Amino acid sequence: MYERTVFFLSDQTGVTAETLGHSLLTQFDGQNFRQVTLPFIDTEDKAHEAVRKINKAGTTDKKRPVVFSTLVQNEFRTIVRGANGLHLDIFDEFLEPLEEEFQQKATYESGRAHGMSDINAYMKRIEATNFALANDDGGISRNYDMADVVLLGVSRSGKTPTCLYLALQYGVYAANFPLTEEEFETGELPGFLIQQKQKLFGLTIAPDRLRQIRKERRSLGKYSSAQQVRYELRESEKIFKRYAIPSVDTTEFSIEEIASRILDSTGVERRVRP
Amino acid sequence: MYERTVFFLSDQTGVTAETLGHSLLTQFDGQNFRQVTLPFIDTEDKAHEAVRKINKAGTTDKKRPVVFSTLVQNEFRTIVRGANGLHLDIFDEFLEPLEEEFQQKATYESGRAHGMSDINAYMKRIEATNFALANDDGGISRNYDMADVVLLGVSRSGKTPTCLYLALQYGVYAANFPLTEEEFETGELPGFLIQQKQKLFGLTIAPDRLRQIRKERRSLGKYSSAQQVRYELRESEKIFKRYAIPSVDTTEFSIEEIASRILDSTGVERRVRP
Repeated sequence: MYERTVFFLSDQTGVTAETLGHSLLTQFDGQNFRQVTLPFIDTEDKAHEAVRKINKAGTTDKKRPVVFSTLVQNEFRTIVRGANGLHLDIFDEFLEPLEEEFQQKATYESGRAHGMSDINAYMKRIEATNFALANDDGGISRNYDMADVVLLGVSRSGKTPTCLYLALQYGVYAANFPLTEEEFETGELPGFLIQQKQKLFGLTIAPDRLRQIRKERRSLGKYSSAQQVRYELRESEKIFKRYAIPSVDTTEFSIEEIASRILDSTGVERRVRP
Repeated sequence: MYERTVFFLSDQTGVTAETLGHSLLTQFDGQNFRQVTLPFIDTEDKAHEAVRKINKAGTTDKKRPVVFSTLVQNEFRTIVRGANGLHLDIFDEFLEPLEEEFQQKATYESGRAHGMSDINAYMKRIEATNFALANDDGGISRNYDMADVVLLGVSRSGKTPTCLYLALQYGVYAANFPLTEEEFETGELPGFLIQQKQKLFGLTIAPDRLRQIRKERRSLGKYSSAQQVRYELRESEKIFKRYAIPSVDTTEFSIEEIASRILDSTGVERRVRP
């Protein structure tokens, strides 16, 4: 059961308010929050509707809601402020010091972050996503010349989601190649990978965790057996060692963490930013 | 040429600092920033290294850098604060009011947002991503019973990146089906889609923009001709109308915006949050 409602308000997508709020709320243990995102608050009606929802939640919960807000237009901010809640607003806190630093007024126009202001950034993300799809799981194009990074690892070690995340979030060209029996038998990587050695990055994972993930897909058989999983991981780690390929253990990491570790370790440029 | 350096500092991935900073910086027109993310500042050495980088940038730019920071541990914050820059820190501003509201001290432990604190959320995102891949472009599984939403649209209208974003960011199960000649000839959707009518959502796009995107893929031929593009869009919009399928025009929208509009319009629950 939740004890308190948290609202994420935005005149745009709500992504910034959600990200900010989430970072702060994880600092408090043992609290149960109901999380409500109210995006696209771009009319007075919608602002009043938000106020009603916040006040209603406060009455129901008997606890004041927390309101993370990234409304930039004053008219809607003023309305929303009338709701009974703890209001935390990044524009309130941070826009003024930036205006002072830049000696320039903010535009106070909505829809600029996560918007189409930069069409090139959009195209880069789309192209990077298409690249990740075409070069997933050693597949189709093997267009590794164009890749920023090529991830290696056994099945279900997290290669695909990481590549897609790198593409969508950062416009990074990430390919991936699965390590299988073929590589384990010889202990060698195929020539087309060795040619890209400086782009290779390995993913490892704890055997128990990998079994758990594989069982979700196929609960029986060799694929998720303890012996097979240990064998594959041991052999893949040998390969990383042999070729001096940097690697990250994904066991305790979220997709964001794996992606950030790869960018940090390889120095690949983040072409676009969230 | 950039005029000023902006740093995103974090003891974790840097995603929150980047998101926050990006939202604020887009409020200032005509500024050229060099953007540098310094993630995983989790030792004193790394904190001192960050200070050196910030000070160096300030000297080179002859302008004080802006530092968006989400360092939660006091020892590292104190070190970083010593750098000559405009420091904007969400924990500085927002943690105290939250502690007061909750009558509870924050943990001041790093690595909680975007971390593996919630293994279920991780699995949901991975499963949703696998679902999106298996149900991309009308493909393989057509497992629409399990879908939260099924996107319809012509080739290159933005279906695939939107589905992947919905999966990775929100753990939402999004399938997509391409509208092609088969549907245009009859003006009808196949039966397996009509059965899922309440889940259908259409993507449209301006003809010029679609041509531009298609030309990136194949510059010649019917695929990106003005006539073909107009024909396909007209017919797909007829189908949306005929079946009363809600739709969004993706022309001016980023992936985040398209995704948020779909969630907002359909009421599909965001299973996880960024």
